[in-house]
Amino acid sequence: MPDPTEVRTVACVGAGVIGGGWAAHFLARGYQVRAWDPGDGAEGRLARIVEGAWPALTELGLADGASPDNLTVLPSLAEAVDGAGFVQESAPEDLAVKRSLLADIDAVTPPGVVIASSTSGYGMTEMQTEAATPGRLVVGHPFNPPYLIPLVEVVGGERTERWAVDWASAFYRHLGKSVITMDRELPGFIANRLQEALWREALHMVANGEATVEQIDTAITDGPGLRWPVHGPCLTFHLAGGEGGMAHMLDHFGPSLKAPWTRLDAPELTERLRDDMVSGCESASDGRPIAELVAERDRAIIAVQRAVAASRSAHDE
Amino acid sequence: MPDPTEVRTVACVGAGVIGGGWAAHFLARGYQVRAWDPGDGAEGRLARIVEGAWPALTELGLADGASPDNLTVLPSLAEAVDGAGFVQESAPEDLAVKRSLLADIDAVTPPGVVIASSTSGYGMTEMQTEAATPGRLVVGHPFNPPYLIPLVEVVGGERTERWAVDWASAFYRHLGKSVITMDRELPGFIANRLQEALWREALHMVANGEATVEQIDTAITDGPGLRWPVHGPCLTFHLAGGEGGMAHMLDHFGPSLKAPWTRLDAPELTERLRDDMVSGCESASDGRPIAELVAERDRAIIAVQRAVAASRSAHDE
Repeated sequence: MPDPTEVRTVACVGAGVIGGGWAAHFLARGYQVRAWDPGDGAEGRLARIVEGAWPALTELGLADGASPDNLTVLPSLAEAVDGAGFVQESAPEDLAVKRSLLADIDAVTPPGVVIASSTSGYGMTEMQTEAATPGRLVVGHPFNPPYLIPLVEVVGGERTERWAVDWASAFYRHLGKSVITMDRELPGFIANRLQEALWREALHMVANGEATVEQIDTAITDGPGLRWPVHGPCLTFHLAGGEGGMAHMLDHFGPSLKAPWTRLDAPELTERLRDDMVSGCESASDGRPIAELVAERDRAIIAVQRAVAASRSAHDE
Repeated sequence: MPDPTEVRTVACVGAGVIGGGWAAHFLARGYQVRAWDPGDGAEGRLARIVEGAWPALTELGLADGASPDNLTVLPSLAEAVDGAGFVQESAPEDLAVKRSLLADIDAVTPPGVVIASSTSGYGMTEMQTEAATPGRLVVGHPFNPPYLIPLVEVVGGERTERWAVDWASAFYRHLGKSVITMDRELPGFIANRLQEALWREALHMVANGEATVEQIDTAITDGPGLRWPVHGPCLTFHLAGGEGGMAHMLDHFGPSLKAPWTRLDAPELTERLRDDMVSGCESASDGRPIAELVAERDRAIIAVQRAVAASRSAHDE
């Protein structure tokens, strides 16, 4: 297999929002990108996605030699993977399609080249069933837009070999991504489970006439959404506990887990879960005192609000 | 009742993280703040919270005459509300405490002055049962820290009079807040229901050893959390649908609502819910084309990432 830092050419299979976003990301990092999509109009769609992303990517800083011209759309899958040191599959979310496509990609891709699926929620175990050499198949789940959001969740299936998970994690890190390498399969992985719980609650509220789309979006953009780029949900609540941190927060607000604040039942707040949350927050914050985290959060919230306002007014001018 | 714009003095009842945060906010906006808390050490705690918040508030810009010196901690509730044109109650989340305290505040506050509770989840209907004049009691639910996060959710109980809900909404808007005025009570209001669904899923994952505190926080800060200050969950998915927007997104990803991506079951995706989501996104985005929203999102995500990075490195220097 190639060294993750020595790959120069990647193949993108699928030219939707995610496949196109990956292509833009690889192009901006200076790679040759070979793309294939069986659908009509794939070349035009890819070009529009890359064109739409390029101002942002230019603003962020392009790698040496990066150019939209390094994108080649090929007429067949075999030609697309030819010479690629990595393959990113971003087909529609349909298990039968993924299974068959991953087997096809596997059949034409040289041994030792890792093939990653952008799937939002299927496990690799259920997707790799038809592939001849499933050991190099991994999930590499990005977030939209893949050319800007750093997170990639990497996880293998039962027949994936460990080296492929490690190789993909190293490759994405080399690309500048923030990688979570998961040790076990979990439907929806981590970020989508969190996001999906929120989304389902939102859909219930609209379905029941309890809130409008606009109220739901304002509730997030002007509320907790301003904190989440700086501190995730755990550290956010660590700070909500005041000087007592997560321990005080759970002791104080723990009973509200029994309240019908969402349609999702909470787990039992056992001593063990409480202690895991408390020690997890200590560790995630490097044991920094609450006052220091509060100051960090405050600086960041102000900066985030200004950044969003400026990016809106830049548009209005 | 006073005009919302003519209030000069507010009373803060409760000196925890939220009560102290409200005090800091009112002080920064130039108000005289009269505070009371029956607990030990309230004066010192309040002073520390205001001191911790002041650099951020100064950076944001103080109103004329704003000063931490305008905070007076009084020895009794009656003295605290004396002369106040508005009362914000931020006692611990305990229904019996809230009921009794709101009745006590009501008893000593002049008629026509609105009394708002910071409760995170109780309905005003269940909290106003012991008050003699419940018509001026409303929920005014802020987000931590109340001196920076704009969102305030305003909702009355069954015995609340409409003028009080309108008055509180106008007063918070005058303070610069982003106000959601709810027409009906809903446990946890809107933002907390969304946030709480995500939080409960996080607790389940930690309880089951499926993810660590650190992985959960990274999944949000480096993933969907970067989009939420600019577009809420609905517009985020409107963009995930590509040129087809929310309609394409629901038609494409709708089936995944049946998948076990979270422990929260989704509602049935009826034609009506689909259409409500599609028209809601059209309305929330003022019908702007997806490409324009994508450009806005991209500018904002870059700016948000830079803002967070800068606020961290400012600290490290």
